[in-house]
Amino acid sequence: MAIRNKQWLLASRPQGWVQESNFRFQETELPAIQDGQVVVKVRYLSLDPYMRGRMNETKSYAPSQPLNAVMIGGTVGQIVESKNPNYKTGETVVGMGGWQEYFVSNGDGLVKADTRMLPPSVYLGCVGMTGVTAWYGLNRVGQPKAGQTVVVSAASGAVGGVVGQLAKIQGCSAVGIAGGKTKCDYVVKELGFDACVDYKSQSFFADLEKATQNGVDVLFENVGGALLDAALVRMNDFGRVAVCGLIGGYNGQDISIKNFGAMLTHRLRMVGFIVSDHMDAWPQALKELGDHVIQGRIKYHETIAHGIESAPRAFIGLLRGENLGKQLVKV
Amino acid sequence: MAIRNKQWLLASRPQGWVQESNFRFQETELPAIQDGQVVVKVRYLSLDPYMRGRMNETKSYAPSQPLNAVMIGGTVGQIVESKNPNYKTGETVVGMGGWQEYFVSNGDGLVKADTRMLPPSVYLGCVGMTGVTAWYGLNRVGQPKAGQTVVVSAASGAVGGVVGQLAKIQGCSAVGIAGGKTKCDYVVKELGFDACVDYKSQSFFADLEKATQNGVDVLFENVGGALLDAALVRMNDFGRVAVCGLIGGYNGQDISIKNFGAMLTHRLRMVGFIVSDHMDAWPQALKELGDHVIQGRIKYHETIAHGIESAPRAFIGLLRGENLGKQLVKV
Repeated sequence: MAIRNKQWLLASRPQGWVQESNFRFQETELPAIQDGQVVVKVRYLSLDPYMRGRMNETKSYAPSQPLNAVMIGGTVGQIVESKNPNYKTGETVVGMGGWQEYFVSNGDGLVKADTRMLPPSVYLGCVGMTGVTAWYGLNRVGQPKAGQTVVVSAASGAVGGVVGQLAKIQGCSAVGIAGGKTKCDYVVKELGFDACVDYKSQSFFADLEKATQNGVDVLFENVGGALLDAALVRMNDFGRVAVCGLIGGYNGQDISIKNFGAMLTHRLRMVGFIVSDHMDAWPQALKELGDHVIQGRIKYHETIAHGIESAPRAFIGLLRGENLGKQLVKV
Repeated sequence: MAIRNKQWLLASRPQGWVQESNFRFQETELPAIQDGQVVVKVRYLSLDPYMRGRMNETKSYAPSQPLNAVMIGGTVGQIVESKNPNYKTGETVVGMGGWQEYFVSNGDGLVKADTRMLPPSVYLGCVGMTGVTAWYGLNRVGQPKAGQTVVVSAASGAVGGVVGQLAKIQGCSAVGIAGGKTKCDYVVKELGFDACVDYKSQSFFADLEKATQNGVDVLFENVGGALLDAALVRMNDFGRVAVCGLIGGYNGQDISIKNFGAMLTHRLRMVGFIVSDHMDAWPQALKELGDHVIQGRIKYHETIAHGIESAPRAFIGLLRGENLGKQLVKV
């Protein structure tokens, strides 16, 4: 009995902002599996800013997403059919299933997820790539000491929220940057940051200065451009800047840096990183993150779009900053 | 018998480009020295880009040069009078004597220079702060491996010339960036770089691309702005950028960085540094640099202005890039 599968393919490369028309929806029949293969039914698809870079022709840090192929994406789902002795029907697995309802795998790249203590979607968020990204950038690049000030942009996003909470757990002061009062309130009241500055406010620079009276020791950058510029002049000597993302420029916007001189006057260390380059850090990071979530020390919010059909719209919303916390599609 | 001393003081802070009128010349009488003090007769004064930052009111990485005080500056000179048992008349000492013919010291900050194998001026250049700056930025920040490509801007300057020669000694390919054919010829023919690209040429971008066919692993940045932008897009993954100076912006010019996205796509590590923060590196660096110069593996050029009266004019020339190699004043 063949399974009908719904998929989103990349139809064309965006010029500037992503359009829904850049994607093409199709229904196909899942092929019968061979020995060694499994069928995974996707429960949640993760939508992440990095996907925007993959949609370009030009080489980013990873190969381009091919045209007319299923969009890549992290997924958590269940084994619904198995001809692989390592996987049993009903097991929950994390993998790169892509923007579709089902996928066939020989097990490569699948990781079993323990759902006794944590809901499956968390393995795409704070106890998955999102969380490890925050953990790596903060600890391995930022190396904050207790008492220091950590600033993170896109603080209400999935990565940013974890960065600030990890900083607080480690005895630092955490200051977020986010767009609008709703997000800033969430960051302070729900996530427990010491402050959150609204970059859309006319008093942004003064507000940031006020929120970072002791200067900034670690900047975790997710946005770039004017936000990064504003934070650079607040850096303390020997501060560290973890460049995790530059979503402010992913659709072709100008993200020039004007205050570059701060690199020298403050002898900053700035490191661009991609968490998949540092697989050695994942086990420790996932262990710590899992403990923090189970113990309630790290909170998170999920913005959930329903049905695989909604993926392009939800992804465009993510790029526009319409989500709070982790953007998922419940399939 | 009192010594007449000629001095340059900072008279006013420059707005944009430095003017000779920002300095004031004066002749004074050197005070009689006390027990523990020495009189040093300056033989060479070092002129360096960092002095421009000190002339500003705003905090750079070091305190401002006070108004109406003798301009700071590295010097090499001779003890001409001593009431300090550690120093004998005739000994050569390196120190921060400033823009003047004589200075009184209690010995703090003076380092004796061995002039049997090396001429005294070299202790202000490749076997002094200049050389250690090159050594530290290349080795401790850049960490090049044999076979990799090192690019350095202001390659015909005192620091840049040492960077490329050290890179060659370590088995790297060295590519300079400099302004004009004379400087580029000097860098390649005299200093032995593999190539030098003229940033004033209309074909600068294409020339840089051609000279860095294997990409760039280490960028040693002395200039900033458009030069840094051009080099950033040539960086290889995991490349290192040592930000040593930003002379392109010291007089208020725009040195915005447009290609900042390379930090992320190539996962670059960028470090701003000041060599005086890293005194622990000096002994090893000076030992290696001294050996290289004595053995003829590192060559250097000095642009010498004559008489302390010429210091402001020579300094302005340095900021305009009129010098080749180390800019000195022979006092």
